[in-house]
Amino acid sequence: MIKFCNHCGTPVNHTIPAGDSLPRHVCPQCHHIQYQNPRVILGCVVEYDQKILLCRRAIEPRHGFWTLPAGFMENGESTQQGAARESLEEACAHVVIDAPFALISIAHIDQVHLFYRGHLDTPIYSAGEESLEVKLFDAEEIPWLELAFTSVRYCLERYLEDRGQGVFDFHETTLLPN
Amino acid sequence: MIKFCNHCGTPVNHTIPAGDSLPRHVCPQCHHIQYQNPRVILGCVVEYDQKILLCRRAIEPRHGFWTLPAGFMENGESTQQGAARESLEEACAHVVIDAPFALISIAHIDQVHLFYRGHLDTPIYSAGEESLEVKLFDAEEIPWLELAFTSVRYCLERYLEDRGQGVFDFHETTLLPN
Repeated sequence: MIKFCNHCGTPVNHTIPAGDSLPRHVCPQCHHIQYQNPRVILGCVVEYDQKILLCRRAIEPRHGFWTLPAGFMENGESTQQGAARESLEEACAHVVIDAPFALISIAHIDQVHLFYRGHLDTPIYSAGEESLEVKLFDAEEIPWLELAFTSVRYCLERYLEDRGQGVFDFHETTLLPN
Repeated sequence: MIKFCNHCGTPVNHTIPAGDSLPRHVCPQCHHIQYQNPRVILGCVVEYDQKILLCRRAIEPRHGFWTLPAGFMENGESTQQGAARESLEEACAHVVIDAPFALISIAHIDQVHLFYRGHLDTPIYSAGEESLEVKLFDAEEIPWLELAFTSVRYCLERYLEDRGQGVFDFHETTLLPN
């Protein structure tokens, strides 16, 4: 909850600025507007020898559940760079990014998830700080009941479907509250 | 420039939080972290009768130059909804969104641009508050030298190429500083 101006420290008003259509946090002192915008989560379906790399989360939310390497996009990076960075941080894996794969809007939590397809040239990986373990799974071994997030399930389902048909598409969906 | 905590008004420190790898704005009083993340710009290549809808900007930056309808994604909406909203706000046009079309990372300004393909069922449009005029352009009429942004040029070039070949693809690029 934004209560103070982050430029000058004055308590802000929640009001519609001139020329705008939505209420924003506006400083009555220095007139700075603190916008709140959706955040981008970048991730990757990483394959090696037909297996898919999953990470078991060492942090909340969903501690102990399995996920694709993914995390918040940072300022100063491209979406590809962010997806590769997350794979390196969470799975200590140097991923070769192949193509954009899935775009998932989750409006009720103000997030956009963007997943790439990628692969490892060599099966070198290990648990990063935010992972309990990292493992390559055959398609039939994927722990569907222990996946951390719906967007991860969506990605893995589309990925295996596409791979089965021999053609990878770009997928888009909107996820609603459970 | 973030100088104060937006939760409690205390001057913040710029420091790397425990378990993080980048400096953030951290409040020494209430420990709130103000993250800064890239913003998403949503837009649409809108077609009617083989023509493409462009808006001449009534606002800075690039006042007077032509652009595709596009703008900042808002909290609480999907990427499709945002692209349709921007088309309505800037061109007073009810767009039918067809498919994701282009993803453009512009890391040096902390932006991700996502454009859809879409169309109008009827050629009803007019200048919204942020536009001086809105017009449907034949391919050979597009004002290439008066386009507002490099991402708009990228989109239009890919769009016309794809249309010429009869197949629309999903495109991705990274734009560097001019």
